[in-house]
Amino acid sequence: MTIVDVIRRKRDGQKHSREELTFVSEAAAGKQDVDDYQLSAWLMAAYLNGLDDEETLWLTLAMASSGERLDLSSLPKPWMDKHSTGGVGDKTTLVLLPLLSACGLTMVKMSGRGLGITGGTIDKLESIPGFRTNLSSDEMLAQAAEIGLAITGQSPNLAPADKTLYALRDTTATVNSIPLIVASILSKKIAGGADHLVLDVKCGSGAFMPDLASARTLGTKLREIATMAGIRTAVAITDMSQPLGRFVGNALEVREAFEVLNKGVGRFASLCVDLAAEALVNVGIAREHEEGALLARQALESGTARERWDRWIVTQTGDKNSGEDVLANLPKSPITHEVLWDGEPGWLSRIDAGVIGQAVVDLGGGRRQKGDKVNPSVGIELGGEIGTRVEKGQALATIHARTESELKTVIPAVTHAFAIEDHAISPLPALIEWLE
Amino acid sequence: MTIVDVIRRKRDGQKHSREELTFVSEAAAGKQDVDDYQLSAWLMAAYLNGLDDEETLWLTLAMASSGERLDLSSLPKPWMDKHSTGGVGDKTTLVLLPLLSACGLTMVKMSGRGLGITGGTIDKLESIPGFRTNLSSDEMLAQAAEIGLAITGQSPNLAPADKTLYALRDTTATVNSIPLIVASILSKKIAGGADHLVLDVKCGSGAFMPDLASARTLGTKLREIATMAGIRTAVAITDMSQPLGRFVGNALEVREAFEVLNKGVGRFASLCVDLAAEALVNVGIAREHEEGALLARQALESGTARERWDRWIVTQTGDKNSGEDVLANLPKSPITHEVLWDGEPGWLSRIDAGVIGQAVVDLGGGRRQKGDKVNPSVGIELGGEIGTRVEKGQALATIHARTESELKTVIPAVTHAFAIEDHAISPLPALIEWLE
Repeated sequence: MTIVDVIRRKRDGQKHSREELTFVSEAAAGKQDVDDYQLSAWLMAAYLNGLDDEETLWLTLAMASSGERLDLSSLPKPWMDKHSTGGVGDKTTLVLLPLLSACGLTMVKMSGRGLGITGGTIDKLESIPGFRTNLSSDEMLAQAAEIGLAITGQSPNLAPADKTLYALRDTTATVNSIPLIVASILSKKIAGGADHLVLDVKCGSGAFMPDLASARTLGTKLREIATMAGIRTAVAITDMSQPLGRFVGNALEVREAFEVLNKGVGRFASLCVDLAAEALVNVGIAREHEEGALLARQALESGTARERWDRWIVTQTGDKNSGEDVLANLPKSPITHEVLWDGEPGWLSRIDAGVIGQAVVDLGGGRRQKGDKVNPSVGIELGGEIGTRVEKGQALATIHARTESELKTVIPAVTHAFAIEDHAISPLPALIEWLE
Repeated sequence: MTIVDVIRRKRDGQKHSREELTFVSEAAAGKQDVDDYQLSAWLMAAYLNGLDDEETLWLTLAMASSGERLDLSSLPKPWMDKHSTGGVGDKTTLVLLPLLSACGLTMVKMSGRGLGITGGTIDKLESIPGFRTNLSSDEMLAQAAEIGLAITGQSPNLAPADKTLYALRDTTATVNSIPLIVASILSKKIAGGADHLVLDVKCGSGAFMPDLASARTLGTKLREIATMAGIRTAVAITDMSQPLGRFVGNALEVREAFEVLNKGVGRFASLCVDLAAEALVNVGIAREHEEGALLARQALESGTARERWDRWIVTQTGDKNSGEDVLANLPKSPITHEVLWDGEPGWLSRIDAGVIGQAVVDLGGGRRQKGDKVNPSVGIELGGEIGTRVEKGQALATIHARTESELKTVIPAVTHAFAIEDHAISPLPALIEWLE
């Protein structure tokens, strides 16, 4: 088999054999004599001519096996993983890990860094002084055995084929292909070892999938292929037309996650409870969603989730202080600036997630390009969510900036991210639907 | 403009602007910060979604301008170039250059090396001891001013964008795209400076285009784009189901070309006369084909073409001997082996050009991969053309080999390249048609 033959088959719209897709994955993992420009030609052919479900499964499994795989068999079942397709202000993982761990699930997760407007969980956690995001596999397993949860950055040893293919897709306009997205996401999940998965597919201006239809298409395919690969998967479609929660920016979001674990109220907290509830149904701890939601709320209200957070942060920072103390040391921006509403009173009808996300990138809180350094302290605090009553002179947003010039750059966009109308607007739920 | 934007447009089936195609060409010439894997993704998108005539013209012109261009204005008009899409035993250039030069045309040509079954004119010429195929632009112009013709290998300075794109296409299954083929061929012709062109599009098992329909499609598009670029172009569709002439192999073909210039009979000689005739019509020296053919035959019979050959070979080898003496020193293979017909007498009905071409590659006379060294002496001499009467015990082919083991490797294939039938077969003309 040569790569030119493999490219030719997909170019001509033919179906790949399992061996051919294993060859592509091995090539991406550097185990075949294939050049990047050959892989990218194949990627474009696959983008344009597609991969069917069986091909997508074969590619996914090959990529999952392209490097090391985490073996969770020393840890108590059930093994749950969670994935979000990424959004603005999405700190859900920071809540769900301790919450579900407190409910008896083993949570071992690898997470990525942010690129563009969608933040990355690892970037958020690194705003906590001393938080380690480079745990080895053995350290992951040891920590999860001790406290029930562990998270780390993407290891180069797990699904290395994905690392190569993703980097190529990112620079060759071949990101937005359902089969390639599915293989990228699920190969890492499979390599991560969990047998249960909650998927949060976001849609709206601040998400990868702009509308409900495309989010459903992706979510459905992700669940189909995950099921074929033996992972029991629940898929939520959630709203990303407005940012999730009231804070966008790394350290700001860590603080907000902590507050949800303490108080558990509001739109973002509701989403966390919903996702946790479905995770508990998925593993069989709860019979149906309401029972799962009750268990999740109990874990929040009883403080067990908060305790788990404390142990987590203390363990993974190696700090002797409490989780709360650590938070007190989160970095803060030197400049804050309020964007005030100077029109007639009304109701917030629009907070453009894409615009807010881009503004945070422009403040230095996200990456324009891979390798950019992220500033953990900057970000935007929102005055309210869609449906909130706004009076004249009230702050629509508080911008946390590093420099006056960066602040000035983003003020016009942030100002125009909001729309206010003169009649009451119904708040939009964060959870749009669970895929049946 | 970024390359990702450009790739995305073609990925989505949109039409490129002239600026975008210039950007692609500059990128291929190393003048933009673009990686090979980005170019190959674009090539696959262009392969699958196509380029329209205007896009093909823009790409062609940009590639033609991506490096140095030959300026023929110091030479007498008309300036004629000739191009063949490549075939087995195709030594037409070796005849047409001196023949048309003898008829008053200035022939300045760059030519390529062979890859796979289609031989390269430069490889054939290099079988002549001392023949220089690396003339600089100034040397080309000086020689053409002196003797009316000059040929050299592809200069890396002319159309460098094509060099990059062709190498990528060759390894990413994106060769067989009409717009990309057209841009590749014509960019080099335009950079070479001629304003008249005879194109020989071959079809059959020994050619790039397997059938008449695909050859017509390519020929028509080549002429359309060449005309848009201001080059007056005649397109012949010629047969490549059997090898052209009686010899395949580098030194063997040089000798056969020389014999055509001396005698000018047979199927191959007829094709040379036809191509020359149309070239003479194209530049206005002849009013119609028959007049051109008469002039070409006169140049052969009067010996003026042969004299031009002698001056050419002597000039370009720097040799003091005659062209004929030089030929006497052509390399010869140590082993010759006759493949005999041991069936009933009959007529040759098939000589598979693809099989014969591959056998010559397997003998070491062609390249499996770029960079392979070519053996000039090996090859195959055919016992006749399709339609020839064959008696029992007669040689169908004489194989010229370097080693016994290489000889043994090719005997079975060569044997099966022939079919003999028990009834007379009409000889097939080499020229199928001129495109109207």
